[in-house]
Amino acid sequence: MSLWINNHWVAGDGEPFQSLNPYDGDVVWQGNAATTAQVEAAVTAASRAFLDWRNTTLTERLAVIERFAKLVQQHQSQLAHIIATETGKPLWESTTEVAAMIGKVALSLNAYHERTGIRQRQQADTTMIVRHRPLGVMAVFGPYNFPAHLPNGHIIPALLAGNTIVFKPSEQTPNTAQRMCELWQQAGIADGVINLLQGGRTTGAALAMAAGVDGVLFTGSAQTGHLLHQQFAGQPQKMLALEMGGNNPLVVGQEYGAMDAAVYTIIQSAFLSAGQRCTCARRLYIATGEAGDLLLARLVAVASHLLVGDPLAIPAPFMGSLISNAAADQIMLHQQQLLEAGGVALLVATRGQGAIVTPAIIDVSAITDLADEEYFGPLLQVSRYDNFTQAVESANQTRYGLAAGLISTDSQQWQYFIDHIQAGIVNRNRPLTGASGDAPFGGPGASGNLRPSAYYAADYCAYPMASIEAEQLQLPFQLAPGVSLN
Amino acid sequence: MSLWINNHWVAGDGEPFQSLNPYDGDVVWQGNAATTAQVEAAVTAASRAFLDWRNTTLTERLAVIERFAKLVQQHQSQLAHIIATETGKPLWESTTEVAAMIGKVALSLNAYHERTGIRQRQQADTTMIVRHRPLGVMAVFGPYNFPAHLPNGHIIPALLAGNTIVFKPSEQTPNTAQRMCELWQQAGIADGVINLLQGGRTTGAALAMAAGVDGVLFTGSAQTGHLLHQQFAGQPQKMLALEMGGNNPLVVGQEYGAMDAAVYTIIQSAFLSAGQRCTCARRLYIATGEAGDLLLARLVAVASHLLVGDPLAIPAPFMGSLISNAAADQIMLHQQQLLEAGGVALLVATRGQGAIVTPAIIDVSAITDLADEEYFGPLLQVSRYDNFTQAVESANQTRYGLAAGLISTDSQQWQYFIDHIQAGIVNRNRPLTGASGDAPFGGPGASGNLRPSAYYAADYCAYPMASIEAEQLQLPFQLAPGVSLN
Repeated sequence: MSLWINNHWVAGDGEPFQSLNPYDGDVVWQGNAATTAQVEAAVTAASRAFLDWRNTTLTERLAVIERFAKLVQQHQSQLAHIIATETGKPLWESTTEVAAMIGKVALSLNAYHERTGIRQRQQADTTMIVRHRPLGVMAVFGPYNFPAHLPNGHIIPALLAGNTIVFKPSEQTPNTAQRMCELWQQAGIADGVINLLQGGRTTGAALAMAAGVDGVLFTGSAQTGHLLHQQFAGQPQKMLALEMGGNNPLVVGQEYGAMDAAVYTIIQSAFLSAGQRCTCARRLYIATGEAGDLLLARLVAVASHLLVGDPLAIPAPFMGSLISNAAADQIMLHQQQLLEAGGVALLVATRGQGAIVTPAIIDVSAITDLADEEYFGPLLQVSRYDNFTQAVESANQTRYGLAAGLISTDSQQWQYFIDHIQAGIVNRNRPLTGASGDAPFGGPGASGNLRPSAYYAADYCAYPMASIEAEQLQLPFQLAPGVSLN
Repeated sequence: MSLWINNHWVAGDGEPFQSLNPYDGDVVWQGNAATTAQVEAAVTAASRAFLDWRNTTLTERLAVIERFAKLVQQHQSQLAHIIATETGKPLWESTTEVAAMIGKVALSLNAYHERTGIRQRQQADTTMIVRHRPLGVMAVFGPYNFPAHLPNGHIIPALLAGNTIVFKPSEQTPNTAQRMCELWQQAGIADGVINLLQGGRTTGAALAMAAGVDGVLFTGSAQTGHLLHQQFAGQPQKMLALEMGGNNPLVVGQEYGAMDAAVYTIIQSAFLSAGQRCTCARRLYIATGEAGDLLLARLVAVASHLLVGDPLAIPAPFMGSLISNAAADQIMLHQQQLLEAGGVALLVATRGQGAIVTPAIIDVSAITDLADEEYFGPLLQVSRYDNFTQAVESANQTRYGLAAGLISTDSQQWQYFIDHIQAGIVNRNRPLTGASGDAPFGGPGASGNLRPSAYYAADYCAYPMASIEAEQLQLPFQLAPGVSLN
């Protein structure tokens, strides 16, 4: 029973598929994809549910959302285990993902009130009031790297605003999505307010193009995101919110403070989640000269000793496996390509059990035509630079613009950096992979379509309805010129 | 010298064209359109200017904006005269348009701080801070109905955020745009921060598609807006903000209060600016029965005596002319079509001098397949209804969703109305044509792409840049699992 449509669990009528534990190859989920007819059924259920749900009070909507959050909390270790076994992410990190799901409720409620909600002022007997209205049926496309937290980050604000949901998780993480929806059902969400479809590209395309869908909230690859943007051409009335990754630079200034703290910050930026966060540093800029040489040597040494392995092992690894063997093969291929193009291997990635890939650090300073691609794994490209402004210019040489970081104790450099860098997440002396839940998330360029998520998710979940209202009609003291009521 | 590029006034190298006073046919402006090469020159100037302008302080940007506003105030009567003679809008109304331009500065500054600006909080030695960054070169497309106020409503927030501008006014109102830009020059705006291009469709298309343009802020027809949306397919990184009109319903409840106040509210909603506001009521729903009959009869009587004529006349008319003879012909044609389709003429529009068209009120209750078109002029379609919920359902039968109004003293009806009507501007017992400058403006459906303007213009002029920053690097108390610095 892989699909959840109008509060019924039904089997998919499409192609069968499986979700494998990428570390040990165990089957963690199997089921069938949704057909186009089932996609339509889910969208219809969500459309019908919208008629009542949109006119519930915020208090009512919040009540069921809070029941869900409480259930998530009660099942935190179970959910974390599901995420860890389905994604290969270490259990400790999967546990933080579940915690982020719970934290999303309070943050989204704040954002609802601050960014949307109701504003009013009185002017004599007239009230100027801005309410916000839901858009309708939102199709939520989840990624595999945060299979619970990221779709949840669309779902919670969308529900708060009064929208209904059709959720299509990554075909690599159906199990996590199914468990989430079981908890929604247990929380007592009304029929059809959330619907779950499983499947790959065909199912996703059918959902995105369904006539009854009023918005698509997408987190995933730039390629798919751009395709969606093209498919939505000429339909400006449909909300399309795209979050599509980056090719993120991390620049280390000549004065970087305590070496191990710098190294730790780089490690966290590049290799957390085995490099499978869209904010991960992909390109590291280090000054030429001895201070840079020392830092780089220390970085390579520490990275080479990172514990990589079984996501459930004790003691816990820093990195588990990648999402799949295919993803691991891709990273190995990209490493090979960089080396063939003239890159110098400072630390070579190797394959381990399943989709395990150990960290790679490649000096790409000699490569003149470096591809502007997002390598979604533990593959860090290092460039040495001679002067800082050139480094910032190089850092900006990307069509993306999601995240960028500076490690520097020089505050003038920081000012220059934030004045010139083109990115939506820009951290100083802190890991790039740390984004604050009470801040907007997203960036310019190919990283998205300027519909930032996280704290600003409230914005794309509602449209404003501005009213000038009075209980009584009355004539103004003075009529407009040329009007006579005699 | 029709174009203003990089602070130089130059002649257009394209086709010659004229702007005529639509009331008396006088030539109020003549010049040549910008060629594609001149469009490129303007975009290049704006791109270069952006490098410095984006890093000026808000105080610096505000200073020149306030100098501009002061000049507008000093030249209010001159500007109003230019608008009145170029659009056919009465002088008193053109004067309010100029006042709205001046008021835009304070409103935009509030919105800048409230919607964008800077937010920060401290957490131990780490600062969480959200700044907002400009997008780059914004192409502003102005409409003819508010040739000063509406482009100004894009330009002021865009400049405040640090963007630079290429402004392409309607080819029907080049004179107003030229005078605005002369005042910007006089205010001392830096070279290239605002550029003016004149011309029609060819010039506009070249501007929208220029590679250096980072965003298009468009107010105009749904047809052109949808075309822009198609042209921007696959370029999600470009900001596209569309405001495209509506087919706005105004519903009168069975209990509508004082008759003349209701009539006055309808007149203001349907015929202000000769029906050339995108918020104008196009469809009027009145209950069957005697109370409705009486209201309708009184409406027709008052509308038939509205003063319509020379925009500069004393005593002043309520309505001047439409924008052009072509626009006047269109309204007459639509009236004819409605009558042929079975509409009953309650008040027949007639042509006067130039592009003058007197108000039309057509009972379309008998037409079963009413076209969902925006008739941009003084042509009001009346439908009689038997029950209120049906009326609201009919009111929602439009692909647009800009504005909707209710005239009713019944507060339960109002609650039902705001719970069910699909529109972005929803007024009660006040004219539909009154929108508050401190509220967002825009609506769902074919009325726009959910990038509301006015108070929310700040949102589409900037993207958020979220930072976690600290002056010093330091190791956390506890390292992540699997990391060793020994």
